[in-house]
Amino acid sequence: MKLASLKAGGRDGTLLVVSRDLARAVAVPEIAGTLQHALDNWDDCAPRLAECADALNAGLVEDPLDFTAVLDEAAVHAPLPRAYPWVDGSAYVTHVELARRARGAEMPASFWTEPLMYQGGSDSFIGPRDPIVAVDESHGIDFEAELAVIVDDVPMGIAPEQAGTHIKLLMLANDVSLRGLIPAELAKGFGFLHGKPSTAFSPVAVTLDELGAAWDGAKVHLPLLTYLNDAQYGCPDSGQDMTFDFTQLIAHAAATRRLCAGTIVGSGTVANCDPSVGASCLLETRMRETLADGQPSTPFLRFGDRVRIEMVDRAGASIFGAMENTVVALAAA
Amino acid sequence: MKLASLKAGGRDGTLLVVSRDLARAVAVPEIAGTLQHALDNWDDCAPRLAECADALNAGLVEDPLDFTAVLDEAAVHAPLPRAYPWVDGSAYVTHVELARRARGAEMPASFWTEPLMYQGGSDSFIGPRDPIVAVDESHGIDFEAELAVIVDDVPMGIAPEQAGTHIKLLMLANDVSLRGLIPAELAKGFGFLHGKPSTAFSPVAVTLDELGAAWDGAKVHLPLLTYLNDAQYGCPDSGQDMTFDFTQLIAHAAATRRLCAGTIVGSGTVANCDPSVGASCLLETRMRETLADGQPSTPFLRFGDRVRIEMVDRAGASIFGAMENTVVALAAA
Repeated sequence: MKLASLKAGGRDGTLLVVSRDLARAVAVPEIAGTLQHALDNWDDCAPRLAECADALNAGLVEDPLDFTAVLDEAAVHAPLPRAYPWVDGSAYVTHVELARRARGAEMPASFWTEPLMYQGGSDSFIGPRDPIVAVDESHGIDFEAELAVIVDDVPMGIAPEQAGTHIKLLMLANDVSLRGLIPAELAKGFGFLHGKPSTAFSPVAVTLDELGAAWDGAKVHLPLLTYLNDAQYGCPDSGQDMTFDFTQLIAHAAATRRLCAGTIVGSGTVANCDPSVGASCLLETRMRETLADGQPSTPFLRFGDRVRIEMVDRAGASIFGAMENTVVALAAA
Repeated sequence: MKLASLKAGGRDGTLLVVSRDLARAVAVPEIAGTLQHALDNWDDCAPRLAECADALNAGLVEDPLDFTAVLDEAAVHAPLPRAYPWVDGSAYVTHVELARRARGAEMPASFWTEPLMYQGGSDSFIGPRDPIVAVDESHGIDFEAELAVIVDDVPMGIAPEQAGTHIKLLMLANDVSLRGLIPAELAKGFGFLHGKPSTAFSPVAVTLDELGAAWDGAKVHLPLLTYLNDAQYGCPDSGQDMTFDFTQLIAHAAATRRLCAGTIVGSGTVANCDPSVGASCLLETRMRETLADGQPSTPFLRFGDRVRIEMVDRAGASIFGAMENTVVALAAA
C-alpha cells in the first residue's frame, strides 16, 4: 500500500491511503487520523489500511480524492510532516571516499566497516512540492537524493539480522545541505546543525511489497532519478555500491538506545562508483571536477533552481511520486 | 503553572496540571490531552491551563491526583515523553575549556563566541523515576545535569533579542552520556549518536513566572543540585558562567531552519569556574583530577548507581520535582 499525508487537520496532517498508480486517495479517519498514529499502532492499523488500499486499487472506493490534483496544488505534506527522530547514514562509502580524496584527506579504514550516521532535525520537514527556503545562496545550497525507511519500535542493541522486520515503510528524501557551512561546523566536532536544515520527502511512503523483486530484504535495486531544472542529473542504482544496507543502518542507530515507532533512517546520498550514471548531489560532481581539473566548476543551487527526485519501477511507473522542490530565499518566503 | 505527563493514554502520556507544591495534579482532557497538543495550540491552551493551575493551587479542584504518590510509583513520564527535536548546547564554555585542557587539546577561540550544539535523539526520553538502561559499564556511563527550555514555533533566522518570547516552559535534564564511546564517535566527524543515548527530564516543566526573580529573561539564577547515591555531588549556579544564554542558544538552533512548537533546547552541563561548588557530571571531576594528578580517580557510573537532580527556590521548595534515575543493565531491564 501507499500512504501520504494531506495538509489538513493539524500539524501532522491527515493520513491518506493512495492508489498504486498515485491517481486516487482516501482519508481513513476510522482507522488512523495520522501516519504517526498508524505507526504507533501498526499491528492493528496496517491490515485495515491494506484492505482499504486493495479496495482503492480495485476502484471500489466511492468519490476518492484526485491525488494528482492535490499533489499539484502542493496540498500534500511529507508522509510524516514531523517525526521523532530522523537519523541519516552514509551508506554509499564510495561517495564519502571521493569527498575525502577531493580535499586531500585520508579516509579512516573503519568507514568501510562502521556506518557514518548523523542525527537530523525532524520537526519541520519539507513537503514534496514545497519550497526549500534558505537564508543565503552563499551558504552553498545542495540537494542529496536518498532513500529512507520508517521503522516501528526497535529494541536497544538489535542485531542487523533482526532489524529487517522493523522496516514498515520506504520513501525518498532530499537531505538538503548547506555545503558552505559544513566544514566549519564539523570542525567544531558536534556534528551537523546549521549545515543540514529541513529535509524534504516524497509524496508517498510505501510498504515493501510495493517494490516487488526490487526489494531484496535490505536494499532497493532500482535507479534513483534526480533532475535539476528538468535536465536529468543522476540515475545511480540504489542497490549497488551500498556498503551498509538498511538492516545495518538500523542496528547502528539502535546500538545504545531503542528507536520509537516512526523513526526515519536514511541511506545517505545514493552514489555509484561508475561516474557515467551521474550524481545525487552537486557536491559529488564538484569533487570529480576538483580531482580532474583542480577546482570545481559546477555551482551550487541558486534561488529559483528546481530539484526533482523520483524512482520508477521496471514498467516505468512512479513508485513514490515525484518530489519537486524549488529553492526560495527566506526574504521572499 | 507546572505541567507533567502521566504514563497513561498513549505514547505521549496524559497532560497533568500540577500544583505549585507538587502535591496534587489534575488531568485536563477538556483543554489538552497531551503536552505536545498544548504546545501546538499554546495561545489557546495556556490561559485555560493557567486558570486550572490557579484553581488547583487554591485547593478548589475536587479529588485531585496525589502527585507525590504517582511520581513515587514511577507513573510520571518526562513532560514531553517524546519530542520532535532536542538540541543541546554547551553554554558553559568553562566546562568545554576544562575538557580540552585535560586532554591537552587547544580550544578554538570561536567557542567563546558561537555555541557548540548537538542534535540529540528525541524519540525515547527517560521518565523522572525510570532507569537509565545501558548496554555495558565499560561504555563510561555519565550524567550531565542541565536546564532545558521548551519553545513554541520559532521562525528561521531569528535574532537572540526576539527569541526570549518563544520560551514557554523550563525543565531539568540529565543528558546521559557514554564517555567511552564519544572520542571515537566524534573523530568520525558526524557528531553524537551512540555516545548520547536517551535523556531524562524532571517530573514537571514550569512556566517562567514560577521562577520569580530567579529568571532574568534568559538565564536561571539558582543552584542546580546533583546527588550521587544520596551524597551531594554539585551545586553550581546555573546563572553564573553561562557564556550563551537561552535566547542565544535558540537563535543558534534556528539559524538555518525554523523550530516547531515543542522543540527542547538544552543548556549543556551546568558548570561554574569555582571548583568548590562541585560538578554536574563525573567527567568534570575526572578532568580536574587529570589536571592535578595526571589521571582521573573518580569512576564512571556502575549498574545500581542512582543520580538525583533537583532545583529548589530561595525558600527551599522543589521547583521541578526531583529526578532520580538508577543505572540498570540492558540484560536486566
